[in-house]
Amino acid sequence: MRFTENFERAKKEALISLEIALRRGEVDEDIIPLLKKINEKPNYFTTSSCSGRISIMEMPDFGDKVNAKWLGKWHREVSLDEVLEAIRKHREGQLWLLVRSPILHVGARTLEDGIKLLNLGVSCGFKYSNIKSISDRKLIVEIRSTERLDALLGENGEILVSDDYMRKLVEIANAQVRRFKRKLKRFEERIEEL
Amino acid sequence: MRFTENFERAKKEALISLEIALRRGEVDEDIIPLLKKINEKPNYFTTSSCSGRISIMEMPDFGDKVNAKWLGKWHREVSLDEVLEAIRKHREGQLWLLVRSPILHVGARTLEDGIKLLNLGVSCGFKYSNIKSISDRKLIVEIRSTERLDALLGENGEILVSDDYMRKLVEIANAQVRRFKRKLKRFEERIEEL
Repeated sequence: MRFTENFERAKKEALISLEIALRRGEVDEDIIPLLKKINEKPNYFTTSSCSGRISIMEMPDFGDKVNAKWLGKWHREVSLDEVLEAIRKHREGQLWLLVRSPILHVGARTLEDGIKLLNLGVSCGFKYSNIKSISDRKLIVEIRSTERLDALLGENGEILVSDDYMRKLVEIANAQVRRFKRKLKRFEERIEEL
Repeated sequence: MRFTENFERAKKEALISLEIALRRGEVDEDIIPLLKKINEKPNYFTTSSCSGRISIMEMPDFGDKVNAKWLGKWHREVSLDEVLEAIRKHREGQLWLLVRSPILHVGARTLEDGIKLLNLGVSCGFKYSNIKSISDRKLIVEIRSTERLDALLGENGEILVSDDYMRKLVEIANAQVRRFKRKLKRFEERIEEL
């Protein structure tokens, strides 16, 4: 496959991009050791990542990412107070509390290397892991889990749910964060197997 | 690749399973023409599918699919009344309104066939499409979109949100259904390109 021939060049480019992102502080802190471990492996390189998050987002319409605005974002468990503080900034459009699973995009040298990584991800609990794309330039494995929450909180400056309801949502969101953090840890420990 | 050698046998088995599921009425009606079109293509076969849905689900804990119970399920837009009727059956655990994107699993003869289908899916708006797995037996492409909603409605027999909130949720859910139905139609029209 063509992407195997282009692997060394693609990895070199990806490592330069990562270096720039690291210097700019654009990489989620808690995932940096995992990225390093993967990039030390001769047959893999990372191209993008998010360590998973809880966020409060304002957007004109659900799914309109382009015009979305983060009012709060955390790569860890949150307190109800933090969430309440973030939603006080709500002015217009729809207000959502979102949970997103960690997501990692990893280039692999050969199809076999890609399948190996995919299977490792699945066995560490990242059940939505898959081969995201294959082009002449690269084969990208996506490591992703099932944790996700999309909860409508308000609209046009008005909060539509009670504090008690919000407390329950925060509990659920935090449980999801604990769950995907455990998976990330397990995955990091098992990178050696690649 | 081994899965290419095993393609004919895997396709034969999948078609038999589909025939059984069709007779039992276990296949979502509105997706049957699409499944037929794909299975007529010599290099592909379908292994499982859901045409996308809105559902009202009761579960002990969020994500506990095993103990979840559907109180209502629709592969189409719903009315607020239908939703209100379904939630009246709520007794215990957490009560959720969920939207899930259509999902199709399709076996492909070669890696190239798989990539072709994956790219067609993405270009029809199924942005979460991917190669789900590759084993000696088969290569499975997943066709999947981004539409999703997870809204907590109640807990332990108690409804936690207002009718007005529920009306907004139903509007959002219906907009998602319209969106993924359009994508399905586009995809069905373009299967010929494979």
